Amino acid sequence: MADSNQIEKLKSGMRDIPNFPKPGILFKDITPVLKDPELFKLSIDLFREILGDTKVDYVVGMESRGFIFGTALAYSIGAGFIPIRKPGKLPYHKKSISYSLEYGEDTLEIHEDAVEKGKKVIIVDDLLATGGTASAAFKLLDDMGADIVCAAFLIELSELKGREKLSACKVVSLINY
Amino acid sequence: MADSNQIEKLKSGMRDIPNFPKPGILFKDITPVLKDPELFKLSIDLFREILGDTKVDYVVGMESRGFIFGTALAYSIGAGFIPIRKPGKLPYHKKSISYSLEYGEDTLEIHEDAVEKGKKVIIVDDLLATGGTASAAFKLLDDMGADIVCAAFLIELSELKGREKLSACKVVSLINY
Repeated sequence: MADSNQIEKLKSGMRDIPNFPKPGILFKDITPVLKDPELFKLSIDLFREILGDTKVDYVVGMESRGFIFGTALAYSIGAGFIPIRKPGKLPYHKKSISYSLEYGEDTLEIHEDAVEKGKKVIIVDDLLATGGTASAAFKLLDDMGADIVCAAFLIELSELKGREKLSACKVVSLINY
Repeated sequence: MADSNQIEKLKSGMRDIPNFPKPGILFKDITPVLKDPELFKLSIDLFREILGDTKVDYVVGMESRGFIFGTALAYSIGAGFIPIRKPGKLPYHKKSISYSLEYGEDTLEIHEDAVEKGKKVIIVDDLLATGGTASAAFKLLDDMGADIVCAAFLIELSELKGREKLSACKVVSLINY
């Protein structure tokens, strides 16, 4: 697995943005990591290490930042990529799920033919916060019979306990705050 | 460059969706291409071929589908990735541009420190339609002094003449409809 030097290196690429998206929140801006070829490659290679020898059929990424790490990971391991999107974006027949946010609710959609029963998938996103998005993605995939090997995140905000919402799944994050 | 067999192969992965997102439009669904590891890899490798020996510093992708091809391309060529996003999504100081759509207008944003003067970039998106999004991205990057090597698209809908809006830029598309 990743050594602490690699993790410190990744962390050094994050930029703290106070009060974004709302007052009181310290946002971890990942764009400096994406911009730096070495750090971006490191992040993808560390995601790949999470899988080790486990072969997955598909990487699943949630719109939009999950696309960033998910597609590069899929390319790097020779897997397919499955997008989970916000309502109205996917053009074919869909399954959808709604889930609660701090205020109000949100909905995610997946194509009904996105994944076949028993196929191995990894869910990838940049951030595990309260876990609402990831657990909704888990449920969509689980209902379709996918074998969800792991949910992997670049960053986990541990005190928000998102991991508890994913108790049926192996959860790995590269950076913990 | 790509041979016609490769292009036919990519085309075979597209799914036609009539009347999406609105009546009269035949939407090209790219999700079957993403899902198929071989086709997804082929699409990225063909984007890479567009660049040939030209080394770029950054791949620029527009939210959301530009992230899909842009990040995998960035990873594959060892470049950094720069996201151009919808309003309110980027957390740091930004430059923004508004542009006309068929009905109404849209806005794109980029971090003001996203690209340094003279750096070589390639703009990547899944679709060149009317060219509004791509030419807005071009203007943002051009104003920041980037050296825009090329704008590359998986699909071009030639009859919508988006290419004309990008006359200051080399434009390459893998598939023409």
